[in-house]
Order: sequence, then C-alpha cells, then structure tokens
Amino acid sequence: MENVKINGLIAAPFTPFDDKGEVDHSIFKEYADFLADTHFEYVFVNGTLAEGMSLTVAERKATAKAWVNSGKGRLKVIVHVGTNCLKDSQELAKHAEEIGAFAIAALTPSYHKPENEECMVEYMAQLAAVAPKTPFYYYDINFATGVYINCSKFLKLAKDRIPTLCGLKHSSRELPSAHGCTLVEGGKYQVLFGTDVQYLSCLVLGMSEVVAAPVLGNLFHEIKKAFDKGDLETARSLQCKAQRLNEIKDRHGGGINIAKSMFTILSGLEMGSVRLPLRALTLDERKRLKTDLETAGFLDIAKPK
Amino acid sequence: MENVKINGLIAAPFTPFDDKGEVDHSIFKEYADFLADTHFEYVFVNGTLAEGMSLTVAERKATAKAWVNSGKGRLKVIVHVGTNCLKDSQELAKHAEEIGAFAIAALTPSYHKPENEECMVEYMAQLAAVAPKTPFYYYDINFATGVYINCSKFLKLAKDRIPTLCGLKHSSRELPSAHGCTLVEGGKYQVLFGTDVQYLSCLVLGMSEVVAAPVLGNLFHEIKKAFDKGDLETARSLQCKAQRLNEIKDRHGGGINIAKSMFTILSGLEMGSVRLPLRALTLDERKRLKTDLETAGFLDIAKPK
Amino acid sequence: MENVKINGLIAAPFTPFDDKGEVDHSIFKEYADFLADTHFEYVFVNGTLAEGMSLTVAERKATAKAWVNSGKGRLKVIVHVGTNCLKDSQELAKHAEEIGAFAIAALTPSYHKPENEECMVEYMAQLAAVAPKTPFYYYDINFATGVYINCSKFLKLAKDRIPTLCGLKHSSRELPSAHGCTLVEGGKYQVLFGTDVQYLSCLVLGMSEVVAAPVLGNLFHEIKKAFDKGDLETARSLQCKAQRLNEIKDRHGGGINIAKSMFTILSGLEMGSVRLPLRALTLDERKRLKTDLETAGFLDIAKPK
Amino acid sequence: MENVKINGLIAAPFTPFDDKGEVDHSIFKEYADFLADTHFEYVFVNGTLAEGMSLTVAERKATAKAWVNSGKGRLKVIVHVGTNCLKDSQELAKHAEEIGAFAIAALTPSYHKPENEECMVEYMAQLAAVAPKTPFYYYDINFATGVYINCSKFLKLAKDRIPTLCGLKHSSRELPSAHGCTLVEGGKYQVLFGTDVQYLSCLVLGMSEVVAAPVLGNLFHEIKKAFDKGDLETARSLQCKAQRLNEIKDRHGGGINIAKSMFTILSGLEMGSVRLPLRALTLDERKRLKTDLETAGFLDIAKPK
Repeated sequence: MENVKINGLIAAPFTPFDDKGEVDHSIFKEYADFLADTHFEYVFVNGTLAEGMSLTVAERKATAKAWVNSGKGRLKVIVHVGTNCLKDSQELAKHAEEIGAFAIAALTPSYHKPENEECMVEYMAQLAAVAPKTPFYYYDINFATGVYINCSKFLKLAKDRIPTLCGLKHSSRELPSAHGCTLVEGGKYQVLFGTDVQYLSCLVLGMSEVVAAPVLGNLFHEIKKAFDKGDLETARSLQCKAQRLNEIKDRHGGGINIAKSMFTILSGLEMGSVRLPLRALTLDERKRLKTDLETAGFLDIAKPK
Repeated sequence: MENVKINGLIAAPFTPFDDKGEVDHSIFKEYADFLADTHFEYVFVNGTLAEGMSLTVAERKATAKAWVNSGKGRLKVIVHVGTNCLKDSQELAKHAEEIGAFAIAALTPSYHKPENEECMVEYMAQLAAVAPKTPFYYYDINFATGVYINCSKFLKLAKDRIPTLCGLKHSSRELPSAHGCTLVEGGKYQVLFGTDVQYLSCLVLGMSEVVAAPVLGNLFHEIKKAFDKGDLETARSLQCKAQRLNEIKDRHGGGINIAKSMFTILSGLEMGSVRLPLRALTLDERKRLKTDLETAGFLDIAKPK
Repeated sequence: MENVKINGLIAAPFTPFDDKGEVDHSIFKEYADFLADTHFEYVFVNGTLAEGMSLTVAERKATAKAWVNSGKGRLKVIVHVGTNCLKDSQELAKHAEEIGAFAIAALTPSYHKPENEECMVEYMAQLAAVAPKTPFYYYDINFATGVYINCSKFLKLAKDRIPTLCGLKHSSRELPSAHGCTLVEGGKYQVLFGTDVQYLSCLVLGMSEVVAAPVLGNLFHEIKKAFDKGDLETARSLQCKAQRLNEIKDRHGGGINIAKSMFTILSGLEMGSVRLPLRALTLDERKRLKTDLETAGFLDIAKPK
Repeated sequence: MENVKINGLIAAPFTPFDDKGEVDHSIFKEYADFLADTHFEYVFVNGTLAEGMSLTVAERKATAKAWVNSGKGRLKVIVHVGTNCLKDSQELAKHAEEIGAFAIAALTPSYHKPENEECMVEYMAQLAAVAPKTPFYYYDINFATGVYINCSKFLKLAKDRIPTLCGLKHSSRELPSAHGCTLVEGGKYQVLFGTDVQYLSCLVLGMSEVVAAPVLGNLFHEIKKAFDKGDLETARSLQCKAQRLNEIKDRHGGGINIAKSMFTILSGLEMGSVRLPLRALTLDERKRLKTDLETAGFLDIAKPK
C-alpha cells in the first residue's frame, strides 16, 4: 500500500437531516454534484462536521454507502469509522471495505483514553486489520477528544504494526506537529491537515492535501492555483478571504451548528438542523448569519461557476 | 415518581471478560452473590468502571439483562444508558424499562458537547422520555467527559421537563457541588455521590447513598454502622483504610485496569482483562499489586464474612 | 519545630484599599478587632484573597508588619511569601522572621512551573532556609497556579530537606488529597484546608484547622461547637448556611471582587475595591449583591455578637 | 506613533547567569556581537526564555540597561515589563523609557487573571500610560499564562485606549489568530509571531517579523532570503532544518533549561544554568544533548559566518 497518495481537495461534508432529524437520503446526488463542481475530489464522511458520533452504526453504514454511490466517478470516499468502542469501529471498517470505500480513518476513543502512543497503536492496529485492503489514516483531533499524543511517535511505532497505514488526518491546529509528521520515515506518510484557515501555510510546507469545510472548494482551488503559479500575493489575499469567512463563523458562535447553517446558506443545499446535544439555531440566528455573509459579499463564494 | 428514594449501598461493578475479551456470562450469579453478601443493595451497571462505553449496544443490553436476572431479589439494578448518540441511548433506555430495571442513568455525550445546561436538559429529556415508568438519574462525571455544567442549575431547569428525574449520580469529586444539589427544591432530588474515598464526608452532609467500587462493600457498611452509632473515631479510622486502599491503587497507576485487577485479587472472582484502548496489565504488574495489598493487610478486606 | 500545631480558626483577610488603590493602613486595628471578635485566632495574610500577588514587595512587607502589629495578643500571623521569583520570596521570608511572624507559607511560582515534586522541594527548601526559626507551610492551590503535584509525595520528599516544614495549606478543593497528607509520616504534618464550604467534611476527617474567608468566623465557630458536642444535625444545618452564602457569591460571579464586596457588606469594614487585573464592581452590582444577602437573611451573620 | 514598524529579525535572548546564579554582566558585549553577527536587529529582553519572571525588579532594570548599552548601534531593544503586579510593571516601563529602549511589551498577570478583554485593555492602558513616548506591544502567550483572550478583540478595544499600542507579540502557536490580528483596522497593528518553527508559514502570510530563539538568526535569515527570491524549495528545506533542531530540543525535554543549554553549545557563549523553579541540567544531560546536535550536523548552524 506504499504508493497510495491522495491528490486533490478533500471535503468534510455535513450530514443532511430532514425535518424529523433523520438522514436525508434524497439529497446526496445533488450534494455530490455540488462538491465535485466546486473542485473537491475526495470526501471525508461521518467525521466531526458530519456529526458522525451522533449517528448509530446502522446510520453510519447507510450514509457511507450513500456517499460511495453518489460519489461514483467523481468523488473518492474516505469513511470515518472512529467510535468509543473497538467492535463498532471494526464493524464500520469492514463495511467500508465491502462497499468499496477509497480509505478509512479513525479517531481515538475519547471516553476511555489510551494512556500512551503504544496503546493507541495497539488499538488502531486491531481496527485497521479488519479492512486489510483499505488504506488507513489515523485521525488526530486532540482538542476535541482530549487525547494528546505525539503524532510523529505514533507513526514511527505504527510502521511495523499497521500495514495499511498511509498517513493521518491532523486536525489539531498545530502546524509544526503536522509538519514534523511529514518528515517521519523519509516522508512515507501523508499528512492531511484539517483546516479552514491554514491552507496557504500548509502549501508552503509541502502539505498540499487538506480536509476542509465544504464551502471552501472554490476558494482553496484558487489559492492552490495562485500558489502553483508563484503568485503569492493573490494566494495571500484569497487566504485572507477564508480567514474573514471563518471570523464570521466565530462571531456567531463558531460551532458545528453555525458552520452547517453557513453551508446551507452558501450552497443552497438544505442541510437541516443538527442533532442533540448540539443546539439547533433559531430562525433569527440563521437570518443574522445570512445578513453578515451578505454584507461581507460572500453569498456566491461557494457556488459552482 | 416523587417518592423513589434509593436506600442502601450501590456497587459499580466491573464487566467480567473471558480470555477472548467477550463478556463472561458464566460468572454473574456468583458475582451478584458476592455483592449482596458484602452489603450492596444496588448495582450501577454498564458505567465507567464497567467500561460500558467500550461495549456495543447489543453487549450492553445483554449485560443489563444478566444483572437484572442474577440480581433478582437481592440487588436492584440501575442501568447506565449514556453514549455519544441519543438514538443508541434511547434504545438502551427502552430496553432497560422492558427488562424491569430499577432505574436508568445517563452521562452526557462527550465528543460533541452540549453548550450549556439548557441543551443538556433538552438532551436528557428526550432520552428519559422513552422510559416513562423508570426513574432517571443524570450522571455527572465532568473530569472524564470534559463537560462542566452547574448541576444545581441542571436540576432546576429539568424539574418541569423530565418527569422521571429522581436525582443524579455525582462523580465529579466536588463535594460542595454535590451538597448544593441536595438543597435544590427543598431536597427533592437524591444525590448519589460516586466515590471510593469520601464516604464519611458524604455521610456527615446527609448524603448516605453513594456509588462505590465493588471492593468497598464491607468497609463502607462498617463506616455507616459506626457513623450511625455516633462513633466517629471508628468511622474515621475505617475511612483511613479506604484512603490507604485507594493510595495503593494510585501508586500502581490508578486506572480502571488497576482497579479491576484489584477487585479480582480481593474478591477471588476473575474479572479478566480490560478492553482496548485501556491497557492490559502484565502478569508482573498484577503480581506486584497483589504483594502490596498483602503487605498492607488488605487481602481479606472485601470478602464476605 | 516538631511540636508547632496550629489550633484555632484561620482567616484569609482581604487587603483594604483606599480610594486611590493604596493599602489603607488606617483600618488594620479595627480589622484585627473584628476578626478576633468573630472567633479567628490566626490570619493568613498576603495570600490569594488578599491579592498578595498584586502588591509590590515593599507593600507586602508593610502589610505583613501592619498585621503583626495590630494582631498582637489576639491574632497570630502567617505571612504568605510566595511569588514568581525566589529572591523576592526570600526577601519576604526574612522580613517575616524579623517582624516576628508566627509562620510563613508559600505557593509555587506559576509562570515558570517546577516540573516535578523534586524541583518543588528544592525551591521551597531554598526559600524556607532564609527563615530558619519560622515554621513553614507549603501552600497548594493547583487550580489557580496550574501546577498539579502530589502533595503527599512533596511532604515525604521534603521531610529531610526542609527542617522548618510544619505542614501545608491545601486549597485544591480535593479533600481526599488533603486527607491523604494527614496520613504521611504518622501524621507529622498539619493540613490546613482552605475552604469556605467543606468545614464539616474536614472536621469529620480530623482536620480541624482550616483557612476561611473572613466572613465565616461565627459560622465556623458554631459548626465546630456543635460538632464537638456530637450534635451533627445542627452542624449540618449550619454548614448548609455556609453553602448558601457561597452560592450567593457564585451567582454574582464568584470572584475575589465579589467575595471582597461581600465582606465589606457583612462586616461593615470598608475594604475598597480590587486591583487590576481584577475588575472593580459597579455600584449597581454591589447593590444587587447586598439585596440578595439581605433577602437570604445573612446581613448579620458575620457580625461580632 | 502610527508609523513605528519593526523591520528585521528579533531575538529572545536567554539571561546569562554566573556560577552563583547571578546575572553575568561580563558577557553582554560579546552576546550582542553574536546576535548582531547572526542577522538579528532587535532583542526582546527579560521575556520568557530570559526567565524574566524569575528576576527581581532591580535585576530586570539592570539587565535591560545592559542590553541597551551593549546593543547600541546594532540592536534595538524591546523590554518586556510584564509581571503579576501592575505597580512593578509600571516601574519597569518607566525605567525602560528612561534608558531609551526602542519599545516595551507586557504579558498579562497570570495569577490573578483578567476576566475578559475589557479588563486586559484597562490593565495594559494603565501600564502603557507611564511610558508615553515608547511603543507598546501586548504579549500574548496563552498556554503559559493560562489566560485565553481574543487578540483581535483586544486590538479593537485598545485602539482608543492605548495611544502607544503598535501591535503584539503573539506566542500562542495559533497562526490563524495571529493572522486575524494583521487584518484588524486595515493592518494598523504589527504582529510579531513568537516561533522557532513556523517562520515560513508566517512569511507566506505576510508576517515577516518574528521573535525567535537566539540560535536561529542564520537559519531564519537564509529562509527569508530564499523566500524573497521566490525560491520556496530552498526555504522549505531550511524550515525543515529548524523543525529538526526543534525536535532535538523536544526529545530532550523541550523546556527552557534545554533550550538554554542548546544555545550555550551552539553559540559558544556560556549562559550558565537556569534559576529555580526550573531544573538545572546534569552534566550528563548536557553532554547527551551535545552529542545529538553533533550527530545531526548542527554544531555550526548558529555561528557567525
């Protein structure tokens, strides 16, 4: 599996819910169109923005399947299989392999926490082993899980224990840690930084593949184009746009509920609300968010061109 | 449901695993005997010490059923139904009601975190509602979940929203917060402090019912007896014993893996290992733990008399 | 110094400031009267409630001196000498010995943090050594300093390194840790729990000497009296009063600024405002605090009788 | 003061101590030579690496003076004046203005913590006001102080309250927050990122001026040169060198004690040990550090050429 390299933008899509809070399967086709039309080539599904942890195992399987089906020929699907329970994660991993997912990824259990990198490797080895033909990415998001490990050390220890390991999704916000991981074993592992605001900083360090909110396809595509041409000024000014977009999100609270509404507003695809324990926005909150996006001139920023 | 009051010691039993890491259903009868014979009258099952979060929904149901069956006539069963996913928790709650559990309890989702007490109430209301005939206890263990709310405020807000609410299991280590909860609404709610070392401090504050590790039945029974007689000196000296027992646990690492081995050693009931991501103890670690317990004269402390 | 035992209630007084934010030296006599008249026998000065860290070394010396002078014959003075800088702390410790302080105490530097218990012992040994005739107490308040050490381990390691060590002021809120410290070396060290709400829990564990906010003299005196007579019901109901008083403080924000205003209101001694970076209360906030205290019937609770 | 812009590399030098732990004033001349000869144009003195918080006010004044004197004509001096006590900081600020420092900077008090951005502005306004002719930089290092504020909000609120405010030293490791600050008020404020490993990421975002460990002059100079020429490949490979240097530091513990020894080894200037509560390295630890640096081929990396 040495040669698997992801090459292209990765979206972390929200899970669409209908009025009753059930996954809205009617929208996936259109959703995949939207992502493909805004320069995404991969989707990282059932992750954090997708509220994957608030879905049952059955719902996660159905959602993964829906993405594989509707992404066919356009979007490669990375299925997030992390849970608090190894058996559940193994079931999800096996299923992902069966339905032909491009790859799987998993975050650590976070209620019971592995006490060190060795335990993490052991856990992930037993998880990855049930999907022996599918590339595996460790997903680190320490501020959300409360589990702080040394990712470089994880990679070194995992090398001989997880044959399918291809890299990690690094959403810790700590660029130097991510950069350090790209230096392990002569660059054997690919680091997919999870970020809405540090794309240019990643590019300059040689980490071209990032996982981003699904509103950012156009913008990140433009940043990459400018960067590849050596036009750093343009790249920087586009990166500032991403920063300003993010600041609007933060000003309204900054949570997944806000990010999801922002996507509905900017994409025109109705994502519905969030599941508890996240808080549903009021109509008024949603309206104010839209007004701010409009004032900033961002209403068309995410639309296919 | 106003009048439900728990009255007696509550054990938080470990889940017994066999050599393959599966729940060992052959031991529950003997296990229940042991607990009843060491002065426990309630069991709080599938909780933190039980690694409930590392079990699948199906395993949790089977375990809850096993406790209800083997506890019959001796132990009342409180089933912990907390997970990261409301639907899973609802399924567990419904099942608990069907099998005749005495009560249910739930901790907060901890990957996605409720942003305030109002969201927590909303979540718990939707959970408790599916088991309308079963007393409900909110389970707060903030240092493990990373969710810090004001428990008194939760109780006040929940009063009109959760008709089955009878109190909370307060495992935050913060005695004043727990004590404060006993003063809400004129003492309407019962506070079950989760503790291995603060029993005497609870008793003196009028919080007689606590949830404790299953090695502590004899010791806590003796503490209560001495306290009820007004013999504080004896009570204090027994409490020091509990403190010393706990210090041995901490000296060896303090985790659930240690606590579980300690129970195997002191009860004679083989609990097996822990599940990943917790770390299995080596034989050598287990041996050293036993030696320390022996040296301290604790080998018979938990045995039925 | 083996036999130094504190025996009596310890107040942690606020530092009085005048309109210009300077220490108000005109009030110390009256202040000492108040404390002595409400059953305090010791004062712990220049500590956290006193905003000791917001005073210059010169101001701290002057304040310590003022307390020693005005306390003479009534109040024994424990001078807090902790700072971020060993040399400053040594200067304060030497001065405390010169002016005849009963004891000194020090918290850890908290900007640069000692990496383990050994470093802490080394630091405190070099500090205590400059006041070789004055009892020394280590002051642990981990949630404020961000330094989390094992206090029992500290005591064991310090035994042969700090000849003047008599115990610790334990303000960590963690009763079991404090209780554990009383068991070290056969009870050699005295543990002064810092608390406004856990007095009864301390008493039942044999920790009779606590450091408390200066409004609590009467109340804690009554709790002790009831406890000593074996009247736990009365003791508990008085402890509930302390809990309710504390809840009012918390409802208004819970900070030192609130606690200080509360003392002004309940004692009749004008403490003035707090120093930056703490926030001065508005007149309106102070008024609302007073109203709440009045409504709860607490206006006379702290007054000498 | 609108037009003050720092333009050039800023070193954060360690404070040299002699065998007795006193500031070694004999070395400043040579020290300034070294820094100027390795492309630094500014020094940020008495800060975190310098153990400024472990120095008395008198020592900090003397050290600031020594830097101003020995830097004359080569290095502009930014004096860090942050402490836990406003009066101490004001004294240091006044002194810095008197001795002709280029600028002052201050971190927040961290024992008593300002409760919000407004309190922080009020504190810093009263501090900056005593040095009305000297540019002021707010110094944010949240992981060390435990004070987490929104720096952009601070800048906006401070605009009309601190006439000397020129920007901030942002050592929080959070690049997006720093980047956001550069967008406030149309770029009015300069952001000096404090970093040993994110220089290239800063450059690409237009934040050219950074504060770095004094070993990094040559390396950062080369990175800037390559970046300015548009040679990103070279810049990246030099940035990897900085990353590897930092990983050696981390492997040996990562603290200021290690960083300081590393500087002694790589510069040839004897910095002496660290002050308590930091732990002095053993000779053996220092030797092993040197071996690792040698093996990695880094022994000449910091030397003037």
